[in-house]
Amino acid sequence: MKNEKFMAEAIVEAKKAIPSGDVPVGAVVVKDEKIIGRGYNKREKNASATAHAEVLAIEDACKNIGSARLDGAVMYVTLEPCPMCAGAIAQARLDKVVFGAYDEKAGAVGSVFNLYYDFKFPHIPKFCGGVMEQECAALLDGFFENLRRNK
Amino acid sequence: MKNEKFMAEAIVEAKKAIPSGDVPVGAVVVKDEKIIGRGYNKREKNASATAHAEVLAIEDACKNIGSARLDGAVMYVTLEPCPMCAGAIAQARLDKVVFGAYDEKAGAVGSVFNLYYDFKFPHIPKFCGGVMEQECAALLDGFFENLRRNK
Repeated sequence: MKNEKFMAEAIVEAKKAIPSGDVPVGAVVVKDEKIIGRGYNKREKNASATAHAEVLAIEDACKNIGSARLDGAVMYVTLEPCPMCAGAIAQARLDKVVFGAYDEKAGAVGSVFNLYYDFKFPHIPKFCGGVMEQECAALLDGFFENLRRNK
Repeated sequence: MKNEKFMAEAIVEAKKAIPSGDVPVGAVVVKDEKIIGRGYNKREKNASATAHAEVLAIEDACKNIGSARLDGAVMYVTLEPCPMCAGAIAQARLDKVVFGAYDEKAGAVGSVFNLYYDFKFPHIPKFCGGVMEQECAALLDGFFENLRRNK
């Protein structure tokens, strides 16, 4: 139930991306059962290539605890991380990443390749995909369906 | 000569990291022969896991040109990018990354693996390593030598 509780919070974040036309992806960082960081995709809103949900959630968590290291924390994110974000999760020393929908085009935690198998990081996070997969994927499908309709 | 000119600017950035005890890595983003973004490693200074030179230089460039896409731009960075940064360079649609020293432990553009060969990104940057390699490596060697002495 813990996975679902925190993934629901990541979905809350994801929905915040929609008004600015950003792909709805959201993330939370959890330590000792508490949310210490939140983020949603602001690539368009901030006009910044690095403003993915995961990067912003990590930056929020680092700021909140005053450390570049998030040992013992877990990230919940609605979409499988891209290579940048999978790398950021390892850099932050997160204990684990739990994601919802798989990303067949750009997923770096199993879909296109798996950064945590194929690359010998000093720190390798654990990972688990497919948590509340349908809800997370439906959010993305709805967003892209709307985009196509409005073209 | 262009490579050396801009790598020298990346070295200027790298040296700014030393006073805060950050590993000296610096980067510049160049478009149409002009520097549009600068960054140096601020992981310790900012207490942020994502504050690598490349990420900060991309964020600076995006801010300066008001776009999440840096098409046609080239990054010069003193050290081979890690997976997070190699991913950020692809996300930003940079045309090319030129780096100085190789990173045998965490380099994701040839040393440990090559993200641009092994992963089918929608956009694959060109890359070139070993530019002013000795100068870039000497900066890092000096930093770590000092750390050992002061232990």
